[in-house]
Amino acid sequence: MTKKKVAVIGATGIAGQQFLASLINHPMFEVTTLAASLRSAGKIYKDAITSDNGSLQWFCQGDPPSPFLKLKVENVLDINPKELDLIFTAVESDAAKEIEPRLAQSTPVISTASAFRGDQDVPIFIPGVNMEHEQLIPVQKLKRQWKGFISPVPNCTTTGLAMALKPIQTAFGIKKVIMTSMQACSGAGRSPGVIALDIMDNIIPYIPKEEEKVHFETKKILGKFSDNVIQPADFLISTTCTRVPVLDAHTEVVYASLRTKGSIDQVKAVLRSFGSEFVQMGFPSCPSKLIEVLEDPFRPQPRRDRDNGEGMTTTIGRVREDEALENGIKFVLTSHNTKMGAARGAILIAEYLAYKGYI
Amino acid sequence: MTKKKVAVIGATGIAGQQFLASLINHPMFEVTTLAASLRSAGKIYKDAITSDNGSLQWFCQGDPPSPFLKLKVENVLDINPKELDLIFTAVESDAAKEIEPRLAQSTPVISTASAFRGDQDVPIFIPGVNMEHEQLIPVQKLKRQWKGFISPVPNCTTTGLAMALKPIQTAFGIKKVIMTSMQACSGAGRSPGVIALDIMDNIIPYIPKEEEKVHFETKKILGKFSDNVIQPADFLISTTCTRVPVLDAHTEVVYASLRTKGSIDQVKAVLRSFGSEFVQMGFPSCPSKLIEVLEDPFRPQPRRDRDNGEGMTTTIGRVREDEALENGIKFVLTSHNTKMGAARGAILIAEYLAYKGYI
Amino acid sequence: MTKKKVAVIGATGIAGQQFLASLINHPMFEVTTLAASLRSAGKIYKDAITSDNGSLQWFCQGDPPSPFLKLKVENVLDINPKELDLIFTAVESDAAKEIEPRLAQSTPVISTASAFRGDQDVPIFIPGVNMEHEQLIPVQKLKRQWKGFISPVPNCTTTGLAMALKPIQTAFGIKKVIMTSMQACSGAGRSPGVIALDIMDNIIPYIPKEEEKVHFETKKILGKFSDNVIQPADFLISTTCTRVPVLDAHTEVVYASLRTKGSIDQVKAVLRSFGSEFVQMGFPSCPSKLIEVLEDPFRPQPRRDRDNGEGMTTTIGRVREDEALENGIKFVLTSHNTKMGAARGAILIAEYLAYKGYI
Amino acid sequence: MTKKKVAVIGATGIAGQQFLASLINHPMFEVTTLAASLRSAGKIYKDAITSDNGSLQWFCQGDPPSPFLKLKVENVLDINPKELDLIFTAVESDAAKEIEPRLAQSTPVISTASAFRGDQDVPIFIPGVNMEHEQLIPVQKLKRQWKGFISPVPNCTTTGLAMALKPIQTAFGIKKVIMTSMQACSGAGRSPGVIALDIMDNIIPYIPKEEEKVHFETKKILGKFSDNVIQPADFLISTTCTRVPVLDAHTEVVYASLRTKGSIDQVKAVLRSFGSEFVQMGFPSCPSKLIEVLEDPFRPQPRRDRDNGEGMTTTIGRVREDEALENGIKFVLTSHNTKMGAARGAILIAEYLAYKGYI
Repeated sequence: MTKKKVAVIGATGIAGQQFLASLINHPMFEVTTLAASLRSAGKIYKDAITSDNGSLQWFCQGDPPSPFLKLKVENVLDINPKELDLIFTAVESDAAKEIEPRLAQSTPVISTASAFRGDQDVPIFIPGVNMEHEQLIPVQKLKRQWKGFISPVPNCTTTGLAMALKPIQTAFGIKKVIMTSMQACSGAGRSPGVIALDIMDNIIPYIPKEEEKVHFETKKILGKFSDNVIQPADFLISTTCTRVPVLDAHTEVVYASLRTKGSIDQVKAVLRSFGSEFVQMGFPSCPSKLIEVLEDPFRPQPRRDRDNGEGMTTTIGRVREDEALENGIKFVLTSHNTKMGAARGAILIAEYLAYKGYI
Repeated sequence: MTKKKVAVIGATGIAGQQFLASLINHPMFEVTTLAASLRSAGKIYKDAITSDNGSLQWFCQGDPPSPFLKLKVENVLDINPKELDLIFTAVESDAAKEIEPRLAQSTPVISTASAFRGDQDVPIFIPGVNMEHEQLIPVQKLKRQWKGFISPVPNCTTTGLAMALKPIQTAFGIKKVIMTSMQACSGAGRSPGVIALDIMDNIIPYIPKEEEKVHFETKKILGKFSDNVIQPADFLISTTCTRVPVLDAHTEVVYASLRTKGSIDQVKAVLRSFGSEFVQMGFPSCPSKLIEVLEDPFRPQPRRDRDNGEGMTTTIGRVREDEALENGIKFVLTSHNTKMGAARGAILIAEYLAYKGYI
Repeated sequence: MTKKKVAVIGATGIAGQQFLASLINHPMFEVTTLAASLRSAGKIYKDAITSDNGSLQWFCQGDPPSPFLKLKVENVLDINPKELDLIFTAVESDAAKEIEPRLAQSTPVISTASAFRGDQDVPIFIPGVNMEHEQLIPVQKLKRQWKGFISPVPNCTTTGLAMALKPIQTAFGIKKVIMTSMQACSGAGRSPGVIALDIMDNIIPYIPKEEEKVHFETKKILGKFSDNVIQPADFLISTTCTRVPVLDAHTEVVYASLRTKGSIDQVKAVLRSFGSEFVQMGFPSCPSKLIEVLEDPFRPQPRRDRDNGEGMTTTIGRVREDEALENGIKFVLTSHNTKMGAARGAILIAEYLAYKGYI
Repeated sequence: MTKKKVAVIGATGIAGQQFLASLINHPMFEVTTLAASLRSAGKIYKDAITSDNGSLQWFCQGDPPSPFLKLKVENVLDINPKELDLIFTAVESDAAKEIEPRLAQSTPVISTASAFRGDQDVPIFIPGVNMEHEQLIPVQKLKRQWKGFISPVPNCTTTGLAMALKPIQTAFGIKKVIMTSMQACSGAGRSPGVIALDIMDNIIPYIPKEEEKVHFETKKILGKFSDNVIQPADFLISTTCTRVPVLDAHTEVVYASLRTKGSIDQVKAVLRSFGSEFVQMGFPSCPSKLIEVLEDPFRPQPRRDRDNGEGMTTTIGRVREDEALENGIKFVLTSHNTKMGAARGAILIAEYLAYKGYI
């Protein structure tokens, strides 16, 4: 099989770097094109990520993959999307709003930006959770008269929550969800990101726009495709999103009221068996389990569990009855915000969509 | 006025030290007696808190108050409670179970231990919240045929929660409470306390026995005294207590369903006006506000707000409507676990009880 | 005594805020003028430090002093220095280069910026260390034909080092100094400062330009005024400056080779007795000891010792013989980088200079 | 080749676990025996590391290797060393003093404990640094009339220092070494280890006995074997060892005076080429480089560089001239204290000694 030709837009930023770190030696995708802002355009990648004082601005584990170091970084305006099979974008929402529609006219765009998540004809995929929303892709293409399409991944806080809720929703139905998040600093990126003076020995109880995103996206992702639109799930949802002194992985404390009562053993069973069909499709970036349920009451912990399944597994613990909600359950989950919750999750989506012929 | 003669039991531990730090130059109480475990008994206090390698094991801000350094530390078994007007105990629960009843036969005991919180005739006071439970004191004395009594302060996580809920309960009634805590490392003390290897860049989603304590104590404290017993409050309560990399102050994210709807402005108003009568009584350890409500959505933060009111004020922010609960509200609070939530809170209770003649 | 009229330039930044926090109710100085960048000019101070989302950007302990909240923030270009007795500047070096000479034509300028520290006619004062360099002030005024003068405080890493070396130099002479610093995040300010992703669970072994500053400034401060210039001290100095996950206070490990041998007891004695004359002058911002020497081998610690003397005392411990250097000693010091090492140190200098009639 | 039969003594502790994590599927060694204290003896390993509340006390990355979970943990007194080819011990120094001589009568013992490092006939190996000290093994066996021998690895702070100094010593000679360490919390283990309350937002400037160990061991390791003893290296050495809020990897700032001047380029060259012969022997636990030298002035950083060479490479940066010492150089190094500095380093030593026929 010849590999698909792939571009990474925003390749010098931290999210773009995460794409590159996950795309090296990828069996299906070959990165042929890097693009970034004007400041970097025209340089080779190595120079584009080297600061004036000679420091390599590479923020993923290990060294930057050497094949990419010599690629020329292009101005995003100069890219010819027709020469590409797939485009990953890792840019801010405002930039995405301008860039992505132009690229999507000819080529599929998988994006980490929030710009188009709210559009009715745009699916927000989480691997194994709502792949049937793929039916929205032809709707989008037809409506916009595009050859490509835009498919954003969700906010990284939504990812773990919707992943955990999906099997519960399927088995028992959900009436209400209350969630408190304790989010990692990497979720805020580096421009400027979270300042050490603000977060060391501290908690910041507010992340602007985060709760609204989680509410909207979770209901859309767990919604039902019918009549060419997604009907959002109809449960009530309330969240408080906080920032804590953790480097990577979001931890979420979830309380849910179910439509029909499920015993704790039943809830654990549906969580544990979730996603086996998706996993068996054998995509390169797919972990062996989408969800892992631990019995140790001291788990999950973000530092110890974030790399489960190479950062692609949602780890759940403390599943127990809730004393306050009708048919209530509660649990704690940890999900790696910059792996399953960002670039690697986007790549897994792309693997699926390529397999299904959308790319 | 001559000062009351006071003992601090467990004076070498971190909780005992917090008593000493707060009792220096106290206008009502004079520390005449220090007691600790056998290992320390017989030494002067300075030597008792000096380790073999010459390091002073003093864990409060600043230096240990010099008047205490020369006091002899006694074996708790050798103490004559009859010579004392008041005894503060800061020992582990198992030790409290043995020690406190003996001392309380003659003398009031205010305790940070959990040993007797569950006893029907034992009040758990929070300053300004449930002082009418003082009516349980004569009941206890009569029943046990003691001249003194035992009065424990609550678990430090309960303190902030019950403080915040009390004015809401009074104004609107409460049906359900769901709370996720992010607790400071100091809550676990130092023996061994929380190990850096476990909590740096991490969260521990479980604190043994904590949630049960919070459920029981909150309902007891917000319960009603009648017919010589406290009828616990009848709301439903569900919590998840976690440990985070914060030195001091517990942060709690609270969701509550009210019996009658209150607007957010009304909720803030009752929180803000709470405790003014108690404050006006002018006790030495009382802050100028029991509760402070902030409008800045990025507050409260444990590092920035823990010392509000010298650690005696509960700071609340992000008061807003809850989307999932009936007549729902939600908010975030921060309370200093080792000040209002421990020794200084206990001292403020003692100031009140002394004023009312119980001590 | 009528108070001196004082301006704070750069009043909205973190260093400017530290000036304000220390100048409230100051017995000698009255802040009449605040200035900041164009973005803030024209607003009242409260609005100037309130972000778009309603969050108060105040970074010192406690609330901003209310008298300042209503002061209008002026554009620095609009300030009339002739109406002022003293100007504190807390701006970046580039801005200082432009602003300070204009202001100093008529008015004394005490600055936290590095812009003029290298100028031959500019003294860099540390309280109690080199006040005789005041003789450079008339030289500067004459040479530049100014009515005012510029007097910067040193780099915050220099402050603790020069403070500790001064009594040793006086008593024994110094041949060589080797110093490794472990510097707090607050030293980098907030624009953007140190990012949590870079420093949590980490050390950054390089701070651009820091070592050069420390070398130059330490030798200048410990140099001798004669023939209208300062002859830098002639010891050799080598440093490595690192950033560590500490909020406030720089810790420095110092190795020194002395010209004449001093016993450890002698070294401790000269450190302990240092500065008593200066302290006895009783300036409002002066601590009761410039240097404190601890015997506990586990001290100094930045978190426990930074607030000694309200952040104005340099705390020294582990004073012992060095095994590698001739007449060698070694010790560890902690100095509060944003108090003695910045605004409060500058204010103490101003108090001295006002007392001596320079202001 | 049949694998050597290996025991791990102290298998339930953190150092013992690190042995197990590194010995799973080892091509030369097969763990047949686990031993621990009385408390664990008789249990299978899984039960021995499961706490009363059901929490698995496994502190290495990932899950415990499943083959070990079912092994029975023996009382160390019941072990028959004659059935073993090699014994790794990971116990406290006092226990080592009793246990190791008994085992070494019949079997080689590689130890992480300090108990015998000071004995004249005991070599302290660092991979690739002083393997010629193997000549001490027959001396030890003869003297003690043992069939086995004891070979401890050095203190984890010594490891990186001696590794970095060795090529410099060989090329230029060393007169003086001054070193300040910033050591990770994992170096203190877990019993009780470093308490979060002591180290968060803080530095502890003293680690009992650490500096003495580093001085003695570094000189012994860099000493010369002749006449059946090791003559310690004759340079002067002075260190200050501190603890910082870092999880893993010790960072050391080194200043050295060389016997003959080396340019910075020459110093980097000898560091970079060091150990190539040892590396080429191809031992399973050997990294591809013993030392890596980085040009980026912001490196090495413990979090980013500790896993270089899977934790077996010493990473060095900021190599530059020292301004204070004769023929002076200075640099910063990072070395993984629980990998090369403990179990994995010990295993690499064992691989070498087995290859050379000592095991």
